[in-house]
Amino acid sequence: MTTTSPGTLEALTRRLPDSTLITDDDVLASVSSDEAEWAEVGRAVAAVRARSTAEVQQVVAVCAELRVPVVTRGAGTGLSGGANAVEGGLVLDLSKMDRVLEIDEDDLVAVVEPGVVNDDLKAAVAEHGLWYPPDPASSPWSTIGGNVATNAGGLCCLKYGVTRDYVLGLQAVVGGPAGEYGTAVRMGRRTTKGVAGYDLTGLVVGSEGTLGVVTEVTLRLRPAPAAAPRTVVGAFGSLVAAGEAVALATRRKLTPLALELLDGPTLRVVEEWKHLGIEADAAALLLAKIDTPGASGEEEATAMAAAFREAGALWAEQSSDDAEAEALFAARRLAYPAMERLGPVLTEDICVPRSQVPGMLADIEAISLRHGVQIGSIAHAGDGNLHPCMISPPDDEAARAAAIAAFDDILEAAIARRGTVTGEHGVGLLKRAGMRAELDPGAQAMQRAIKQALDPLDLFNPGKVVGEP
Amino acid sequence: MTTTSPGTLEALTRRLPDSTLITDDDVLASVSSDEAEWAEVGRAVAAVRARSTAEVQQVVAVCAELRVPVVTRGAGTGLSGGANAVEGGLVLDLSKMDRVLEIDEDDLVAVVEPGVVNDDLKAAVAEHGLWYPPDPASSPWSTIGGNVATNAGGLCCLKYGVTRDYVLGLQAVVGGPAGEYGTAVRMGRRTTKGVAGYDLTGLVVGSEGTLGVVTEVTLRLRPAPAAAPRTVVGAFGSLVAAGEAVALATRRKLTPLALELLDGPTLRVVEEWKHLGIEADAAALLLAKIDTPGASGEEEATAMAAAFREAGALWAEQSSDDAEAEALFAARRLAYPAMERLGPVLTEDICVPRSQVPGMLADIEAISLRHGVQIGSIAHAGDGNLHPCMISPPDDEAARAAAIAAFDDILEAAIARRGTVTGEHGVGLLKRAGMRAELDPGAQAMQRAIKQALDPLDLFNPGKVVGEP
Repeated sequence: MTTTSPGTLEALTRRLPDSTLITDDDVLASVSSDEAEWAEVGRAVAAVRARSTAEVQQVVAVCAELRVPVVTRGAGTGLSGGANAVEGGLVLDLSKMDRVLEIDEDDLVAVVEPGVVNDDLKAAVAEHGLWYPPDPASSPWSTIGGNVATNAGGLCCLKYGVTRDYVLGLQAVVGGPAGEYGTAVRMGRRTTKGVAGYDLTGLVVGSEGTLGVVTEVTLRLRPAPAAAPRTVVGAFGSLVAAGEAVALATRRKLTPLALELLDGPTLRVVEEWKHLGIEADAAALLLAKIDTPGASGEEEATAMAAAFREAGALWAEQSSDDAEAEALFAARRLAYPAMERLGPVLTEDICVPRSQVPGMLADIEAISLRHGVQIGSIAHAGDGNLHPCMISPPDDEAARAAAIAAFDDILEAAIARRGTVTGEHGVGLLKRAGMRAELDPGAQAMQRAIKQALDPLDLFNPGKVVGEP
Repeated sequence: MTTTSPGTLEALTRRLPDSTLITDDDVLASVSSDEAEWAEVGRAVAAVRARSTAEVQQVVAVCAELRVPVVTRGAGTGLSGGANAVEGGLVLDLSKMDRVLEIDEDDLVAVVEPGVVNDDLKAAVAEHGLWYPPDPASSPWSTIGGNVATNAGGLCCLKYGVTRDYVLGLQAVVGGPAGEYGTAVRMGRRTTKGVAGYDLTGLVVGSEGTLGVVTEVTLRLRPAPAAAPRTVVGAFGSLVAAGEAVALATRRKLTPLALELLDGPTLRVVEEWKHLGIEADAAALLLAKIDTPGASGEEEATAMAAAFREAGALWAEQSSDDAEAEALFAARRLAYPAMERLGPVLTEDICVPRSQVPGMLADIEAISLRHGVQIGSIAHAGDGNLHPCMISPPDDEAARAAAIAAFDDILEAAIARRGTVTGEHGVGLLKRAGMRAELDPGAQAMQRAIKQALDPLDLFNPGKVVGEP
């Protein structure tokens, strides 16, 4: 790969004496893409595993001077291609900037480097009786930096919000109006509230590395939950009936910590792989977690099971067996890797208004039939955030084409139901066309103007999100 | 006033045949300022009370053509001068755009015009068993549009977040890259989650009318609380002891719905005015509201009272009398108008990290003594968001100068404690210098670049927030 730009590589090597440039083809390939199926991957000139903000600053300054695009990455667990290398660019891997710099029990904040793995942060703050809620299914592997880049959600954001709700402030290496490229800028605050100027922090969260390189994050924490949550499980004879149960639970004003859906095919794939001992013969399972303490929690669990039954559940009950409940949530987390064992998986990430969940699930079934595509559906159903996964046999061109057609149809159907093409995975490369179909052209023009104002060289992750498809 | 720009007024009148231009001096003066004490007020050319998005679009388009600045306002309850008229500008009053367009129980959203009063929205959604949590003390008068402009907080944001956390999407009349000035653009979404592109909605929230005119807001709602909250009251012999109690409650991982502080002078002023029957002889009262249901709530209330006592409360107890608890919270809401009866009140709005609350309260006492300024302190103490109010006798120039000096010293002290100069009132005019002292210059440059990119004519509320002091 490196043969394509010998002059650039030589210049980078000379100008970055303190960084180790990765140019080995295999290693470079291993850091050149995320987990987005079939998204284009450019040939990078080199990669750097940065160890400090100072090193990031130097890399960005030199890349700006040489006009080498910078693609930042963490663990590479993204599902939209946001971390895929671009042609002739440099991959800036922050996974080694993985220190928890501070956990402050009195201020309820943590300050971390971007490479800290989500579950590692959770474990670290738990030692102080604290909790960092955002929990994407990738939490054992994905980094806080990646979570910030995509504004990652997860299971418990139904009740406790997404990554943006927990980022109080950050430091990013930027360019443009802030000064020379390579300037490190602090945004946001350490306080719970604050309205001094525009919300730059919230703007950078979810910008997928297109506005700069985040090198430090100040996170809001919560007290650890006092008691273990209750789990209510419902089995359904059809996907749509499960969707009706979700809508009914919302109408009944129930607010579980999480309300997850797994369809039968997904359950069976996980069970065949991991032998968790879960029942896998229903068309869909709903898993509700309820963290309201005491008798009120008991009432909520009872009401949830009743809502499941009224919506037509085959059975619904509060799980009295912690191991069983844990196995079900493990199945939820393992669903994606389990499906990947069967062949390439194209993952959707639509989010529809809550009332549209049953209709959208019906749309997905119709699209699956129409294109003859096997779809395994997992969903943060309570949020209306659905992840139908198109599974194709390996090396089957026709199946691949059918999966892509189904993917596009699902996006169109979600927009028709007043939904969005991406609830939590980000736009990256795969959702650029969908985003264009979804958003008001005026809003898109404003987004491009912000990108142009803050990154006039189009140095940071060019072509992604607001870039041309 | 209008005599200053006869040509402009004539042109506006000719070009806006469908709008009633307000030019009467008294009426114009009544819509030319908010409640910020001693903030400069420019002489407006005219005002328009718009009735629809279409009318706003026409006004903005014509003002852009004639280069007449547009200052948007709602109820005028702001405390930073953000809604003060600018010289030669037009005041665009949205208080008559006050329709609740939609309340959707199934999607848990409301769609409203900006002129809807906060408490009116709360009442409307309550009829559907729903709740809109943000509750600035001005909620009986302030509008959702104004709340959006300043990202208003309030009492219960300690547990339930601020305005930005509830704004899913909005429509704004903008200019610049979105097209001709006067273009109405939809941003954000109706879904619970969504990451399609940069968070324009969050950027507009808190931008104080400097990026466009918000004409419609889509709000997230919550189920109404199941039970009435418990109130715990503690009386303290000193402000600092009350601050210690707040810090201790945080350290004990208690999460009340609200944790408010009123100092003795404030209590006495309210009692003298309203005769609510509250005890007003302590140096400070803390009021905690706890909404955890059942026995867990009871435990939390007991733990809160214990924390108050351990921090040195004169007494602390769970209020068994709803009327008494209601009177105390009414006192909290009436504190500001009660102080205003004594003379001009200069209101601070600093927010410090929670651990810094006792120290910051000590700083405020020292500053009060140093400048010989009477300060009444009210605070969202659990958030670290403090509102020391400098009270001056009317028409006393020396007292005014001392109040301003104290104001500046408090900002400096808050920044030294890693706090912010504005927790929820906004920058407007009064906090521009403070914001410059607080924020990284690089972040300020990025903010100005965004303003320039989205409002190249500097038409919307010029001179505010990112404008020059």
